[in-house]
Amino acid sequence: MRSFSLLLDFKTGEFTPHDRINMRKLSHMKGMFFDTESELQILRKEDPLIYSFSEKILPEENGHLQLATTTIQPGKIGEEYFMTKGHYHRRPDTSEVYLGMGGEGCLLMQTVDGDFDSIEIRQGVIAYIPPYWGHRMVNTGKTPFIFFAIYPGDAGHNYGDIERTGFKKILVERDKKPVLIDNPRWKQRD
Amino acid sequence: MRSFSLLLDFKTGEFTPHDRINMRKLSHMKGMFFDTESELQILRKEDPLIYSFSEKILPEENGHLQLATTTIQPGKIGEEYFMTKGHYHRRPDTSEVYLGMGGEGCLLMQTVDGDFDSIEIRQGVIAYIPPYWGHRMVNTGKTPFIFFAIYPGDAGHNYGDIERTGFKKILVERDKKPVLIDNPRWKQRD
Repeated sequence: MRSFSLLLDFKTGEFTPHDRINMRKLSHMKGMFFDTESELQILRKEDPLIYSFSEKILPEENGHLQLATTTIQPGKIGEEYFMTKGHYHRRPDTSEVYLGMGGEGCLLMQTVDGDFDSIEIRQGVIAYIPPYWGHRMVNTGKTPFIFFAIYPGDAGHNYGDIERTGFKKILVERDKKPVLIDNPRWKQRD
Repeated sequence: MRSFSLLLDFKTGEFTPHDRINMRKLSHMKGMFFDTESELQILRKEDPLIYSFSEKILPEENGHLQLATTTIQPGKIGEEYFMTKGHYHRRPDTSEVYLGMGGEGCLLMQTVDGDFDSIEIRQGVIAYIPPYWGHRMVNTGKTPFIFFAIYPGDAGHNYGDIERTGFKKILVERDKKPVLIDNPRWKQRD
Protein backbone atom coordinates (compact mmCIF):
# COMPACT_ATOMS: atom_id res chain seq x y z
CA MET A 1 0.00 0.00 0.00
CA ARG A 2 1.23 3.53 -0.79
CA SER A 3 0.96 6.64 1.35
CA PHE A 4 -1.60 9.37 0.76
CA SER A 5 -2.45 12.76 2.16
CA LEU A 6 -5.66 14.54 3.14
CA LEU A 7 -6.27 18.18 3.98
CA LEU A 8 -7.92 18.85 7.35
CA ASP A 9 -9.56 22.28 7.40
CA PHE A 10 -8.84 23.73 10.87
CA LYS A 11 -11.86 26.05 10.46
CA THR A 12 -14.55 23.57 9.38
CA GLY A 13 -13.01 20.37 10.80
CA GLU A 14 -13.67 18.53 7.52
CA PHE A 15 -10.96 16.66 5.63
CA THR A 16 -10.79 16.22 1.85
CA PRO A 17 -10.94 14.03 -0.06
CA HIS A 18 -13.07 11.51 1.82
CA ASP A 19 -14.52 8.29 0.48
CA ARG A 20 -17.89 8.15 2.20
CA ILE A 21 -20.30 10.40 4.12
CA ASN A 22 -22.76 8.72 6.48
CA MET A 23 -25.95 10.43 7.65
CA ARG A 24 -27.70 9.66 10.94
CA LYS A 25 -31.21 11.05 11.03
CA LEU A 26 -33.57 10.80 13.99
CA SER A 27 -35.30 7.80 12.38
CA HIS A 28 -31.97 5.92 12.54
CA MET A 29 -31.84 6.43 16.33
CA LYS A 30 -35.31 5.30 17.38
CA GLY A 31 -35.63 4.94 21.13
CA MET A 32 -32.13 6.25 21.88
CA PHE A 33 -33.31 9.63 23.23
CA PHE A 34 -34.94 9.61 26.63
CA ASP A 35 -38.08 11.52 25.67
CA THR A 36 -39.76 9.08 23.27
CA GLU A 37 -42.92 11.21 23.18
CA SER A 38 -41.00 14.22 21.80
CA GLU A 39 -39.22 11.91 19.38
CA LEU A 40 -42.53 10.67 17.97
CA GLN A 41 -43.97 14.19 17.73
CA ILE A 42 -40.93 15.37 15.74
CA LEU A 43 -40.92 12.31 13.48
CA ARG A 44 -44.56 12.96 12.55
CA LYS A 45 -43.46 16.27 11.00
CA GLU A 46 -39.86 15.73 9.88
CA ASP A 47 -36.79 13.51 10.16
CA PRO A 48 -33.98 15.86 11.23
CA LEU A 49 -30.32 15.12 10.58
CA ILE A 50 -28.69 14.47 13.98
CA TYR A 51 -25.10 13.90 12.81
CA SER A 52 -22.97 12.93 9.84
CA PHE A 53 -19.49 11.50 9.53
CA SER A 54 -16.95 11.43 6.72
CA GLU A 55 -14.60 8.50 6.44
CA LYS A 56 -11.51 7.54 4.55
CA ILE A 57 -11.75 3.86 3.59
CA LEU A 58 -8.73 2.03 5.02
CA PRO A 59 -7.95 -1.63 5.66
CA GLU A 60 -9.80 -2.96 8.73
CA GLU A 61 -6.63 -4.69 9.86
CA ASN A 62 -4.44 -4.68 12.94
CA GLY A 63 -1.56 -2.23 12.44
CA HIS A 64 -3.61 0.20 10.32
CA LEU A 65 -5.45 3.28 11.61
CA GLN A 66 -8.91 4.64 10.77
CA LEU A 67 -9.77 8.32 10.25
CA ALA A 68 -13.16 10.06 10.48
CA THR A 69 -14.66 13.51 11.01
CA THR A 70 -18.06 13.74 12.71
CA THR A 71 -20.39 16.75 12.76
CA ILE A 72 -23.27 16.77 15.26
CA GLN A 73 -25.95 19.34 14.52
CA PRO A 74 -27.17 21.65 17.32
CA GLY A 75 -30.58 20.76 18.72
CA LYS A 76 -32.53 18.76 21.29
CA ILE A 77 -35.12 15.99 21.47
CA GLY A 78 -37.21 17.17 24.40
CA GLU A 79 -34.55 18.46 26.78
CA GLU A 80 -31.82 16.02 25.65
CA TYR A 81 -29.11 17.33 23.33
CA PHE A 82 -28.41 15.85 19.90
CA MET A 83 -25.78 13.12 20.21
CA THR A 84 -24.19 10.18 18.42
CA LYS A 85 -25.55 6.64 18.81
CA GLY A 86 -22.42 5.74 20.77
CA HIS A 87 -20.60 2.45 20.58
CA TYR A 88 -18.11 0.07 22.09
CA HIS A 89 -15.46 -1.33 19.79
CA ARG A 90 -16.14 -4.75 18.27
CA ARG A 91 -12.61 -5.53 19.44
CA PRO A 92 -13.20 -4.10 22.91
CA ASP A 93 -9.53 -3.81 23.96
CA THR A 94 -8.85 -0.91 21.57
CA SER A 95 -8.53 2.83 22.21
CA GLU A 96 -9.70 5.88 20.28
CA VAL A 97 -8.45 9.46 20.08
CA TYR A 98 -10.85 12.37 19.53
CA LEU A 99 -9.67 15.85 18.57
CA GLY A 100 -12.19 18.70 19.00
CA MET A 101 -12.27 20.87 15.84
CA GLY A 102 -15.18 23.27 16.43
CA GLY A 103 -18.26 23.95 18.52
CA GLU A 104 -18.87 22.72 22.06
CA GLY A 105 -19.70 19.28 23.29
CA CYS A 106 -19.14 16.54 25.75
CA LEU A 107 -17.73 13.03 25.51
CA LEU A 108 -19.64 10.46 27.59
CA MET A 109 -17.91 7.15 28.35
CA GLN A 110 -18.94 4.01 30.20
CA THR A 111 -17.79 0.46 30.76
CA VAL A 112 -20.02 -2.61 30.71
CA ASP A 113 -19.44 -2.84 34.48
CA GLY A 114 -21.21 0.49 35.02
CA ASP A 115 -18.21 2.81 35.39
CA PHE A 116 -18.82 6.27 33.89
CA ASP A 117 -16.72 9.28 32.86
CA SER A 118 -17.10 12.47 30.81
CA ILE A 119 -14.83 15.10 29.20
CA GLU A 120 -15.84 18.51 27.88
CA ILE A 121 -14.65 18.97 24.30
CA ARG A 122 -13.87 22.14 22.36
CA GLN A 123 -11.36 23.08 19.66
CA GLY A 124 -7.94 21.60 20.42
CA VAL A 125 -9.05 19.19 23.14
CA ILE A 126 -7.62 15.71 22.60
CA ALA A 127 -9.54 12.99 24.45
CA TYR A 128 -8.02 9.54 24.93
CA ILE A 129 -10.67 6.82 25.22
CA PRO A 130 -8.97 3.77 26.75
CA PRO A 131 -9.73 0.16 25.83
CA TYR A 132 -13.12 -1.20 27.00
CA TRP A 133 -14.81 2.23 27.30
CA GLY A 134 -17.96 2.80 25.23
CA HIS A 135 -18.20 6.38 23.96
CA ARG A 136 -20.80 8.87 22.76
CA MET A 137 -20.42 12.53 21.79
CA VAL A 138 -23.05 15.17 22.59
CA ASN A 139 -23.46 18.67 21.12
CA THR A 140 -24.15 21.05 24.02
CA GLY A 141 -23.71 24.22 21.93
CA LYS A 142 -25.66 26.36 19.48
CA THR A 143 -23.45 25.57 16.45
CA PRO A 144 -22.34 22.32 14.77
CA PHE A 145 -20.00 20.33 17.01
CA ILE A 146 -17.15 18.83 14.97
CA PHE A 147 -14.44 16.37 15.95
CA PHE A 148 -11.80 14.27 14.25
CA ALA A 149 -11.31 10.65 15.32
CA ILE A 150 -8.43 8.18 14.95
CA TYR A 151 -8.67 4.55 16.03
CA PRO A 152 -7.00 1.21 15.35
CA GLY A 153 -7.73 -0.35 11.97
CA ASP A 154 -9.32 -3.48 13.43
CA ALA A 155 -11.29 -1.79 16.28
CA GLY A 156 -14.67 -2.09 14.54
CA HIS A 157 -17.99 -0.86 15.97
CA ASN A 158 -20.36 -2.51 18.41
CA TYR A 159 -23.53 -0.38 18.41
CA GLY A 160 -25.79 -3.14 19.70
CA ASP A 161 -24.79 -3.03 23.36
CA ILE A 162 -25.52 0.70 23.66
CA GLU A 163 -28.81 0.21 21.78
CA ARG A 164 -29.82 -2.40 24.37
CA THR A 165 -28.60 -0.72 27.57
CA GLY A 166 -28.53 3.01 26.77
CA PHE A 167 -25.98 5.25 28.45
CA LYS A 168 -25.75 5.41 32.23
CA LYS A 169 -26.03 9.20 32.18
CA ILE A 170 -27.63 11.58 29.68
CA LEU A 171 -27.04 15.27 28.96
CA VAL A 172 -30.07 17.50 29.20
CA GLU A 173 -30.63 21.26 29.18
CA ARG A 174 -31.89 22.77 32.45
CA ASP A 175 -31.99 26.58 32.95
CA LYS A 176 -30.23 26.86 29.55
CA LYS A 177 -27.23 24.88 30.81
CA PRO A 178 -26.11 21.30 30.11
CA VAL A 179 -26.64 19.01 33.10
CA LEU A 180 -25.58 15.38 33.39
CA ILE A 181 -28.34 13.29 34.97
CA ASP A 182 -28.82 9.59 35.63
CA ASN A 183 -30.64 7.83 32.81
CA PRO A 184 -33.70 6.20 34.42
CA ARG A 185 -33.91 3.84 31.44
CA TRP A 186 -30.32 2.62 31.69
CA LYS A 187 -29.94 -1.13 32.07
CA GLN A 188 -26.66 -2.64 33.23
CA ARG A 189 -25.68 -5.29 30.72
CA ASP A 190 -26.47 -8.91 31.69
CA MET B 1 -7.25 2.62 32.70
CA ARG B 2 -9.24 5.87 32.79
CA SER B 3 -9.61 8.45 30.05
CA PHE B 4 -7.73 11.74 30.01
CA SER B 5 -7.60 14.89 27.93
CA LEU B 6 -4.84 17.07 26.52
CA LEU B 7 -5.02 20.51 24.95
CA LEU B 8 -3.48 20.82 21.48
CA ASP B 9 -2.64 24.45 20.70
CA PHE B 10 -3.56 24.96 17.03
CA LYS B 11 -1.12 27.91 16.87
CA THR B 12 2.01 26.36 18.38
CA GLY B 13 1.24 22.67 17.68
CA GLU B 14 2.19 21.75 21.25
CA PHE B 15 -0.07 19.76 23.55
CA THR B 16 -0.23 20.07 27.33
CA PRO B 17 0.35 18.39 29.65
CA HIS B 18 3.03 16.06 28.27
CA ASP B 19 5.11 13.57 30.22
CA ARG B 20 8.46 13.84 28.47
CA ILE B 21 10.36 16.12 26.09
CA ASN B 22 13.20 14.56 24.07
CA MET B 23 15.96 16.66 22.50
CA ARG B 24 17.91 15.64 19.41
CA LYS B 25 21.02 17.72 18.96
CA LEU B 26 23.46 17.41 16.06
CA SER B 27 25.77 15.25 18.21
CA HIS B 28 22.93 12.70 18.51
CA MET B 29 22.79 12.37 14.69
CA LYS B 30 26.45 11.84 13.83
CA GLY B 31 26.93 10.79 10.21
CA MET B 32 23.23 11.12 9.29
CA PHE B 33 23.67 14.33 7.27
CA PHE B 34 25.35 13.97 3.90
CA ASP B 35 27.98 16.68 4.38
CA THR B 36 30.07 15.21 7.19
CA GLU B 37 32.70 17.94 6.76
CA SER B 38 30.15 20.69 7.55
CA GLU B 39 28.84 18.59 10.44
CA LEU B 40 32.32 18.39 12.00
CA GLN B 41 32.94 22.12 11.49
CA ILE B 42 29.69 23.00 13.26
CA LEU B 43 30.29 20.54 16.10
CA ARG B 44 33.71 22.13 16.79
CA LYS B 45 31.85 25.36 17.66
CA GLU B 46 28.42 24.28 18.95
CA ASP B 47 25.92 21.45 19.20
CA PRO B 48 22.70 22.88 17.74
CA LEU B 49 19.26 21.50 18.60
CA ILE B 50 17.90 19.83 15.44
CA TYR B 51 14.50 18.73 16.78
CA SER B 52 12.55 17.95 19.93
CA PHE B 53 9.47 15.90 20.59
CA SER B 54 6.93 15.84 23.41
CA GLU B 55 5.28 12.60 24.34
CA LYS B 56 2.43 11.38 26.45
CA ILE B 57 3.46 8.11 28.14
CA LEU B 58 0.94 5.42 27.17
CA PRO B 59 0.99 1.61 27.33
CA GLU B 60 3.14 0.14 24.55
CA GLU B 61 0.46 -2.44 23.86
CA ASN B 62 -1.61 -3.54 20.91
CA GLY B 63 -4.96 -1.72 20.94
CA HIS B 64 -3.55 1.47 22.48
CA LEU B 65 -2.40 4.55 20.55
CA GLN B 66 0.67 6.78 21.01
CA LEU B 67 0.69 10.59 20.74
CA ALA B 68 3.63 12.94 20.10
CA THR B 69 4.34 16.45 18.84
CA THR B 70 7.65 17.07 17.05
CA THR B 71 9.27 20.43 16.35
CA ILE B 72 12.13 20.58 13.83
CA GLN B 73 14.18 23.78 13.97
CA PRO B 74 14.91 25.66 10.74
CA GLY B 75 18.46 25.28 9.47
CA LYS B 76 20.87 23.28 7.33
CA ILE B 77 24.01 21.17 7.66
CA GLY B 78 25.85 22.13 4.50
CA GLU B 79 23.05 22.31 1.96
CA GLU B 80 20.89 19.62 3.63
CA TYR B 81 17.90 20.73 5.69
CA PHE B 82 17.45 19.87 9.37
CA MET B 83 15.49 16.63 9.69
CA THR B 84 14.53 13.83 12.07
CA LYS B 85 16.63 10.68 12.36
CA GLY B 86 13.85 8.74 10.70
CA HIS B 87 12.77 5.24 11.60
CA TYR B 88 10.89 2.11 10.67
CA HIS B 89 8.56 0.66 13.27
CA ARG B 90 9.94 -2.15 15.42
CA ARG B 91 6.69 -3.89 14.53
CA PRO B 92 7.04 -3.11 10.81
CA ASP B 93 3.42 -3.85 9.81
CA THR B 94 2.07 -0.73 11.58
CA SER B 95 0.95 2.63 10.20
CA GLU B 96 1.39 6.19 11.43
CA VAL B 97 -0.62 9.37 10.92
CA TYR B 98 1.07 12.79 10.81
CA LEU B 99 -0.85 16.05 11.07
CA GLY B 100 0.98 19.22 10.02
CA MET B 101 0.52 21.96 12.67
CA GLY B 102 2.86 24.77 11.55
CA GLY B 103 5.76 25.66 9.28
CA GLU B 104 6.70 23.91 6.06
CA GLY B 105 8.28 20.56 5.53
CA CYS B 106 8.41 17.32 3.70
CA LEU B 107 7.78 13.70 4.68
CA LEU B 108 10.25 11.24 3.13
CA MET B 109 9.30 7.55 3.09
CA GLN B 110 11.04 4.41 1.91
CA THR B 111 10.70 0.64 2.11
CA VAL B 112 13.55 -1.79 2.75
CA ASP B 113 13.14 -2.90 -0.89
CA GLY B 114 14.14 0.56 -2.13
CA ASP B 115 10.71 2.03 -2.91
CA PHE B 116 10.51 5.78 -2.17
CA ASP B 117 7.79 8.40 -1.72
CA SER B 118 7.41 11.94 -0.38
CA ILE B 119 4.59 14.28 0.70
CA GLU B 120 4.80 18.05 1.29
CA ILE B 121 3.45 18.95 4.74
CA ARG B 122 1.95 22.20 5.99
CA GLN B 123 -0.75 23.10 8.50
CA GLY B 124 -3.76 20.78 8.14
CA VAL B 125 -2.09 18.17 5.93
CA ILE B 126 -2.74 14.64 7.21
CA ALA B 127 -0.22 12.10 5.90
CA TYR B 128 -0.95 8.38 6.17
CA ILE B 129 2.24 6.29 6.39
CA PRO B 130 1.27 2.70 5.57
CA PRO B 131 2.79 -0.40 7.19
CA TYR B 132 6.41 -1.18 6.22
CA TRP B 133 7.34 2.40 5.20
CA GLY B 134 10.24 4.05 7.03
CA HIS B 135 9.66 7.77 7.55
CA ARG B 136 11.62 10.97 8.15
CA MET B 137 10.42 14.58 8.37
CA VAL B 138 12.43 17.51 6.98
CA ASN B 139 12.03 21.23 7.71
CA THR B 140 12.27 23.07 4.36
CA GLY B 141 11.09 26.43 5.76
CA LYS B 142 12.48 29.38 7.69
CA THR B 143 10.41 28.77 10.87
CA PRO B 144 10.00 25.77 13.20
CA PHE B 145 8.21 22.90 11.47
CA ILE B 146 5.71 21.27 13.83
CA PHE B 147 3.63 18.13 13.43
CA PHE B 148 1.46 15.89 15.57
CA ALA B 149 1.80 12.11 15.28
CA ILE B 150 -0.48 9.20 16.20
CA TYR B 151 0.58 5.57 15.88
CA PRO B 152 -0.35 2.16 17.27
CA GLY B 153 0.63 1.51 20.89
CA ASP B 154 2.89 -1.43 20.04
CA ALA B 155 4.51 0.04 16.89
CA GLY B 156 7.85 0.84 18.57
CA HIS B 157 10.84 2.44 16.86
CA ASN B 158 13.57 0.89 14.75
CA TYR B 159 16.20 3.61 14.23
CA GLY B 160 19.05 1.21 13.48
CA ASP B 161 18.12 0.35 9.90
CA ILE B 162 18.02 4.00 8.83
CA GLU B 163 21.31 4.64 10.69
CA ARG B 164 22.92 1.84 8.67
CA THR B 165 21.44 2.53 5.21
CA GLY B 166 20.55 6.23 5.24
CA PHE B 167 17.60 7.47 3.23
CA LYS B 168 17.44 6.81 -0.52
CA LYS B 169 16.88 10.50 -1.25
CA ILE B 170 17.85 13.61 0.68
CA LEU B 171 16.45 17.16 0.64
CA VAL B 172 18.93 19.91 -0.13
CA GLU B 173 18.65 23.62 -0.86
CA ARG B 174 19.62 24.67 -4.40
CA ASP B 175 18.91 28.21 -5.67
CA LYS B 176 17.05 28.81 -2.38
CA LYS B 177 14.58 25.99 -3.13
CA PRO B 178 14.25 22.47 -1.69
CA VAL B 179 15.35 19.80 -4.17
CA LEU B 180 15.12 16.04 -3.68
CA ILE B 181 18.31 14.33 -4.85
CA ASP B 182 19.59 10.77 -4.77
CA ASN B 183 21.68 10.06 -1.69
CA PRO B 184 25.05 8.83 -2.99
CA ARG B 185 25.71 7.24 0.40
CA TRP B 186 22.46 5.24 0.47
CA LYS B 187 22.94 1.49 0.85
CA GLN B 188 20.09 -0.92 0.10
CA ARG B 189 19.68 -3.16 3.12
CA ASP B 190 21.24 -6.65 2.82
